[in-house]
Amino acid sequence: MFSGAQVSLYPMTDDFVGVITGALAALDPYRERLRIETDDISTLIVGPPEVLFPALRDLFSAAAATGRHCVLSAAISRGCPGEPDDEICATPLLGGPREPLETRKDAALAEVARAPDKATPTAAQFSLYVMGTGDHMDEIYGCIDFLKRSGVFGRSKNFCTRLDGDAGAVFAAIEAAFCRFGPPEGHVTIDLTASANSPTPR
Amino acid sequence: MFSGAQVSLYPMTDDFVGVITGALAALDPYRERLRIETDDISTLIVGPPEVLFPALRDLFSAAAATGRHCVLSAAISRGCPGEPDDEICATPLLGGPREPLETRKDAALAEVARAPDKATPTAAQFSLYVMGTGDHMDEIYGCIDFLKRSGVFGRSKNFCTRLDGDAGAVFAAIEAAFCRFGPPEGHVTIDLTASANSPTPR
Repeated sequence: MFSGAQVSLYPMTDDFVGVITGALAALDPYRERLRIETDDISTLIVGPPEVLFPALRDLFSAAAATGRHCVLSAAISRGCPGEPDDEICATPLLGGPREPLETRKDAALAEVARAPDKATPTAAQFSLYVMGTGDHMDEIYGCIDFLKRSGVFGRSKNFCTRLDGDAGAVFAAIEAAFCRFGPPEGHVTIDLTASANSPTPR
Repeated sequence: MFSGAQVSLYPMTDDFVGVITGALAALDPYRERLRIETDDISTLIVGPPEVLFPALRDLFSAAAATGRHCVLSAAISRGCPGEPDDEICATPLLGGPREPLETRKDAALAEVARAPDKATPTAAQFSLYVMGTGDHMDEIYGCIDFLKRSGVFGRSKNFCTRLDGDAGAVFAAIEAAFCRFGPPEGHVTIDLTASANSPTPR
């Protein structure tokens, strides 16, 4: 199944090029397992979720560590019928039969509990989109129930859910939302915004 | 039908607060027809597409006019079954029977042809998500065909379509994609990135 993201990093500073190029080193441990292509709007990162989400987390954390207000924005997708498959995306996380919703919530909660501490306070919001099925809202409500028990739930907003916590747990929760909800072979996407060091009060 | 967006503006400058607060004046002509709420991650803008998209266009254009590298990012949604309806969203653009795809493409092309010139060179990319139907890819391919003939088509990218042109035509094309594709009463979303003044070559 083809999976990956179009990712952009926005440092709100005159030295945005320096912050971005500095943060890119955080992708080095993942480069062999990802296909990465950059243009003037975004960087395409193709690869399986268990590599993609830690890579996004570490890229975001490296930018946040500069202390500048930085935002990572990503359009993340799996199973789009219009995309050719790619061997680099092979993963044990997707495919197989669809397990009961409660089983998947428990698995998602266990994944967040295992997340490493990245010492990066993170404010994030995301929307989960499930395509090609008539029951997409059941999957989305199931995901929201998982998020409310995940330890990083912030609040429900119009069109999205807000998460607050360390980047480790926040990105683990988003990865679990992406992999565990919607049909295992289905077309599922996430619209993600992760923010660090905003001067604006919540 | 409830419609609106979570919108963020990212000026890549130390004076990002000044650029954002300056650009917000561009929303003034639209404020009576929109509901606007801001937090530290994004601004919720609720209202009908024919007000929302021009408001986004003018907000983006005002920020771009500073000459700084600025990005507007938005999660735009209509018809989400989880959102209550709101009178402010009433619009003649949505609802009614679903017309043939070719009729809708022609209407979308006419809308782009009527777009005003905003004198704002814009590089944008967006993904259209159609939920709750089994034929979502037919709608998406229909939309891509419209975009290829719109005059602002850039190229197909993984997970999204790139547009290049003046902000007037680019935002008109995205509004037409949002309103004309997917069922008139359906749940349709767009993940939008619009960029100005990037120092990175295409």
